[in-house]
Amino acid sequence: MLALDALLRWLDIAGIAVFAASGALVASRKRMDAVGFVLIAAVTGFGGGTVRDLLLGRTPPFWLRDPTWLAVASSVAILVFFTAHRVESRFKALLWADAVGLALYAVLGAEIALLAGARPWAAVLLGVVTATFGGVARDVICNEVPLLLRKEIYALAALAGAAAFVALRVNGTWRDPALLAGMAVAFAIRAVAIARGWSLPAYKPRPGRDYPDRE
Amino acid sequence: MLALDALLRWLDIAGIAVFAASGALVASRKRMDAVGFVLIAAVTGFGGGTVRDLLLGRTPPFWLRDPTWLAVASSVAILVFFTAHRVESRFKALLWADAVGLALYAVLGAEIALLAGARPWAAVLLGVVTATFGGVARDVICNEVPLLLRKEIYALAALAGAAAFVALRVNGTWRDPALLAGMAVAFAIRAVAIARGWSLPAYKPRPGRDYPDRE
Amino acid sequence: MLALDALLRWLDIAGIAVFAASGALVASRKRMDAVGFVLIAAVTGFGGGTVRDLLLGRTPPFWLRDPTWLAVASSVAILVFFTAHRVESRFKALLWADAVGLALYAVLGAEIALLAGARPWAAVLLGVVTATFGGVARDVICNEVPLLLRKEIYALAALAGAAAFVALRVNGTWRDPALLAGMAVAFAIRAVAIARGWSLPAYKPRPGRDYPDRE
Repeated sequence: MLALDALLRWLDIAGIAVFAASGALVASRKRMDAVGFVLIAAVTGFGGGTVRDLLLGRTPPFWLRDPTWLAVASSVAILVFFTAHRVESRFKALLWADAVGLALYAVLGAEIALLAGARPWAAVLLGVVTATFGGVARDVICNEVPLLLRKEIYALAALAGAAAFVALRVNGTWRDPALLAGMAVAFAIRAVAIARGWSLPAYKPRPGRDYPDRE
Repeated sequence: MLALDALLRWLDIAGIAVFAASGALVASRKRMDAVGFVLIAAVTGFGGGTVRDLLLGRTPPFWLRDPTWLAVASSVAILVFFTAHRVESRFKALLWADAVGLALYAVLGAEIALLAGARPWAAVLLGVVTATFGGVARDVICNEVPLLLRKEIYALAALAGAAAFVALRVNGTWRDPALLAGMAVAFAIRAVAIARGWSLPAYKPRPGRDYPDRE
Repeated sequence: MLALDALLRWLDIAGIAVFAASGALVASRKRMDAVGFVLIAAVTGFGGGTVRDLLLGRTPPFWLRDPTWLAVASSVAILVFFTAHRVESRFKALLWADAVGLALYAVLGAEIALLAGARPWAAVLLGVVTATFGGVARDVICNEVPLLLRKEIYALAALAGAAAFVALRVNGTWRDPALLAGMAVAFAIRAVAIARGWSLPAYKPRPGRDYPDRE
């Protein structure tokens, strides 16, 4: 990411940092060593943006162009390695770090896509991809149930935030307020979903039946 | 995919639709909400073609260039969300939707690769990649045993279909009959494998021993 | 990979062969058929280099440009299909094949990245990506615990080998000795880790507490 200016750059760094922290917290649940913490932090922090960059044809991806991102992810991972045992509930900390990352990346991903010339609907999709892919890779590699598949509203929050941002931008709002508004929308939805256990109606196999429908 | 003409475009849409349906059926087995249905349908429908496009250097991939594909995948996902409980055996429906998608994508992927200048053997490989990757991503994210790893013949059907198509094309057959012939070959092999439980001889750890050889 | 000269080409082929063997050994543990052996061998052998090539914007990736790689991977897979039952401990064989592949790919990946113009730190990272990604994909698709996540030192060996190679190259060492030295470093670290069970200090949830910290 060409650090366009101060706000964008700091939001980028914050996104890497919180997703890296969420990755390191999963690593702590898996009792990995410090190298494992750094690897999973990097996969989580860089995964979504890497897929976005590949889909847009922007190679090499951002984390190979500027060592800042690696420095941020590694520092956070090492910090979590030495401090996570002080956290009361690491699963809860993981949920919230992931929620902040989801909100930041949904909007930042859409912004990068717009700058790369994507049409509005495609920019919204790329925001969702940027926000969700790193967390899915983290959970699949670590063999956890992806947060994406849990009951509480997840991808919808990213979609709403990215769509709000793109709608504001397309209608002429300045970038910085649009960024902050989109992030606020995504975070608010996800936060309420976590705090109150909000979920969308799930598929019911058959009215009156509610047992696992496995092969 | 540049919609070259009517037949190719309709086959493309059919491929997206059946793979999206297979994704939505896995989502129904996992009791996901409607957004989850759309996401898994999109991953399954777009995954193989996305990897093919990235390998060929065609960015952005097809589903970011034309909103039709997203519309098809979403509609199918929503339809399955509201109707899957009427399906007698959702696993069986999933198997057959996946089989049709496998046949279509094996041949369509090879066709796109040939158009992009790939040599015949590489086009066959890209057909197999296009046909199998979406389903593997669907199953890995949803934590199901990949169909690819089950006993019945799977990847071989895609390989045979793609190879038949490429062989016909390279030897001068017109495109449309070659497309249909390749798809018929792939689908016939996979269908018989499902219906009769056909499988290739599997690896036997040691003659006369047949227990799991786990670490 | 443009086969620059004999040594590099032979090392490349050796890397494909040992990673393909490690993939085929996992396939044997899963009782797959011969096609499954070839697929998993190809995913393991080509996965890391494919991601490296995509990140560097080199499309199509190496295995679509030259059929040699596919021939090597397939031959090894078929050979393992017919001979793995003679191997005393297939898990041990898998560990060692993977270790050789890790050492070769860490250094070869860094070399390709340097040739493509990556800066030294980025080349080291790409070496690690090249070395680890195929094995992770193999294990995730086959539903095994990734070797990357096991206790023994793994990614650190790749990092050390790639860093040693890049440091030597940047400081003017000729390519061939630098290649061999880097590979020796990576293999030695990994070999000792396997043989003696060496591991880095893992994260401890809390001094004095040592039970799983699952949600």
